[in-house]
Amino acid sequence: MSEIARKENTDILIEGATIISCGLGGCNEKVAVLDEGAIAIDGDRIVYVGPSPAPDEFRDAAKRIDASHLIALPGFVNAHTHAAMTLLRGYADDMVLMEWLQEKIWPIEAHLGSEDVYWGAMLACIEMIRAGVTTFADQYFFMEDTARAARDTGIRACLSRGLIATSPNSDTALRENIELCQGWDGEADGRITTMLGPHAPYTCPVDFLEKVMEAANELGVGMHIHLSETLGEVEESRAKHCGMSPIELMDSIGLFEFQTLAAHCVHVSDKDIEILSAKGVGVAHNPGSNMKIASGTAPVPDMLKAGVKVGLGTDGASSNNNLDVLEEARLAAFLHKLANNDPTVIPAGQALVMATLGGAKAMGMASDIGSLEPGKKADIILLDTTKPHMYPKHDLTSHIIYSARASDVATVIINGKLVMEDSILIAIDEQKILRMADERAKALVAKA
Amino acid sequence: MSEIARKENTDILIEGATIISCGLGGCNEKVAVLDEGAIAIDGDRIVYVGPSPAPDEFRDAAKRIDASHLIALPGFVNAHTHAAMTLLRGYADDMVLMEWLQEKIWPIEAHLGSEDVYWGAMLACIEMIRAGVTTFADQYFFMEDTARAARDTGIRACLSRGLIATSPNSDTALRENIELCQGWDGEADGRITTMLGPHAPYTCPVDFLEKVMEAANELGVGMHIHLSETLGEVEESRAKHCGMSPIELMDSIGLFEFQTLAAHCVHVSDKDIEILSAKGVGVAHNPGSNMKIASGTAPVPDMLKAGVKVGLGTDGASSNNNLDVLEEARLAAFLHKLANNDPTVIPAGQALVMATLGGAKAMGMASDIGSLEPGKKADIILLDTTKPHMYPKHDLTSHIIYSARASDVATVIINGKLVMEDSILIAIDEQKILRMADERAKALVAKA
Repeated sequence: MSEIARKENTDILIEGATIISCGLGGCNEKVAVLDEGAIAIDGDRIVYVGPSPAPDEFRDAAKRIDASHLIALPGFVNAHTHAAMTLLRGYADDMVLMEWLQEKIWPIEAHLGSEDVYWGAMLACIEMIRAGVTTFADQYFFMEDTARAARDTGIRACLSRGLIATSPNSDTALRENIELCQGWDGEADGRITTMLGPHAPYTCPVDFLEKVMEAANELGVGMHIHLSETLGEVEESRAKHCGMSPIELMDSIGLFEFQTLAAHCVHVSDKDIEILSAKGVGVAHNPGSNMKIASGTAPVPDMLKAGVKVGLGTDGASSNNNLDVLEEARLAAFLHKLANNDPTVIPAGQALVMATLGGAKAMGMASDIGSLEPGKKADIILLDTTKPHMYPKHDLTSHIIYSARASDVATVIINGKLVMEDSILIAIDEQKILRMADERAKALVAKA
Repeated sequence: MSEIARKENTDILIEGATIISCGLGGCNEKVAVLDEGAIAIDGDRIVYVGPSPAPDEFRDAAKRIDASHLIALPGFVNAHTHAAMTLLRGYADDMVLMEWLQEKIWPIEAHLGSEDVYWGAMLACIEMIRAGVTTFADQYFFMEDTARAARDTGIRACLSRGLIATSPNSDTALRENIELCQGWDGEADGRITTMLGPHAPYTCPVDFLEKVMEAANELGVGMHIHLSETLGEVEESRAKHCGMSPIELMDSIGLFEFQTLAAHCVHVSDKDIEILSAKGVGVAHNPGSNMKIASGTAPVPDMLKAGVKVGLGTDGASSNNNLDVLEEARLAAFLHKLANNDPTVIPAGQALVMATLGGAKAMGMASDIGSLEPGKKADIILLDTTKPHMYPKHDLTSHIIYSARASDVATVIINGKLVMEDSILIAIDEQKILRMADERAKALVAKA
């Protein structure tokens, strides 16, 4: 009897939280704030978001969380990273891009193996969970190992195998990407989804991209691609392809007929922005990486004005050097105010939307994640508000974007499961991950 | 007997730390790294920095700290803030400067009283201690209350009363600043020092500044002033003062004959930089504030090249919105790489120098603080290296600047006294401070 009764009850009830999300009260492009709110979770879904105490039918939960000193947010979405590159964090910094790649990153990547990627991705996953990131979009290699890491840590991931047509094993890589999609899409209780990962127009000629599109058509998956990160690649594209920018070129060959997640989009024209908007291309803006590598300033306010779906990415930890989406949200707000000489650009609420629903939209996942609404997957983070930098309590949305730290994330729920509670990772051997990642990284340096 | 024996021993011995600071091994402009290091403290001074275990004479310390998983750094220096403005954190953001000041900040500041400033500054002090800031330079009003807060929390502070000649009480304000210098300089075991605080050339005409210089001469103190924060004030200066920039104007009247700490210096010419360098003017660079308010990008790499003493400031928490110098160091590295289209600009070590010794030099305090060397005051912070974002251990200086968070600061020693240990504030009633600051802030909003 109690078994049956249990199944009729909710699994988790969060009570007394300040809830900040899109979708509260019907609005869907700005965050709203609900004081003294409750969220009920049944299985992997949110079933109630509203005033606390929740209605009777939600109150007999298996797990109740007193969130009276906590803010409830949708989990942060990291719309572009290369998780296993945590192994190279701090290995080489403050260098000119091509020297950095040719002398440091590529030589060491040549030695990367499957187990390296697994432990590097494990490190990335626990770093992201601790920072309140509940979903990430990844493009790298040995992606089945990144999939294993996502499965084993409880995070949600959208994975693609990076495809570089100019490398000798490009057909093998495409086959691996297809197998990743076939083998892993929908795995881990649906937490893992897949995409194809053509690296960039400058590494993937049109004939190769046509093979990728053919595969995407058969598999019914989208694309994760780097577009217009540096000025050089845009100039090269215009020189080689009848004056077309990378975005114009991709549009001309029909790539954007597929769900596309485009990383960077730094050097884009008004025409590019029109295309991104018209074709519903998702953009992963990476302000930290763009600043640290000195790639340039993406015209994000213009993109947002044009209705482009913009989310935030950290890029890999060798070029940023952490996986902290909250930091990216602050950087985005700061950078674009400065670049536009206008402190009203990207206000706090808009930055928070980019870090959550914006990323979900950019990845084509907004029907499932990115906001706290009944029917969506239960990807929820709870932020501690008791630290000095969160006082006084004038405006918690402002505090999150302009004052909080990722370390304020106390509790993380992904797909309805508690993954971290009061800063303690649940069912994850954190010490082993740290040790293994450090050992793998040291061994790689010894080989390089 | 044991009393006498105790006095011959050191007070604190830090063992097994990775020490990162200028001054290790003689170098004084770059950080060096000492693995497995020890630091001994006697009274308020460092008496040993070197390999661990320390020599016998330092080993019988009253307090021993096992720092085998910790990085020891000189405490961060916040070279420009308005501490009590924590009360206005999040009160108004994302607004155009003059609207923000005229409609929000000034009306509420008009109601600020002595006890408000005390509790606002208390909040600032504990926020800074938690973020590893051991020294701050402040300019505001009711500065005796900020002095009380510094005294009561154990932090080091260099305080000045903001002087605005165009306000009706400017003579009173100057008298208050003089009394602050007379009453508080050297108080709290030497932790409190003082300056005069002429707000800026555009609010302090030359005849008023002459009175300030006269007072500085009598008191033997330096100046804390805002210079060239916005383009408008530079243009106004050139129009009013025979083409002179604010920096040229200040130089022409002899202000820089006094130890000067100049906040911002965003819109500066090559000639301005020459003057700053030649006159030894310290600059507090505030990248977070400059980005959020869209003031502009200070030419920091040029200043550093010219030998200007550049430190980092957070500015007040109503315009930033936290007091996190580590964040400013990362922003400085990121911002100037982007602005100069060069990822080699401001490498990690240089950013760390700015956050520590650079600030000390800018404030004229480098003989006492800013690095870990025998003879200097014991202002030391210990950073936890066990979090995922600090792995793998390729380069800890890179990790501090590009990946760490202020929350990684575990232990803080100021003037030889343990102020925070393992993230717990010692001899400070944190809950009361949070409550009082929140109550004061709410009451102010009700009045405004």
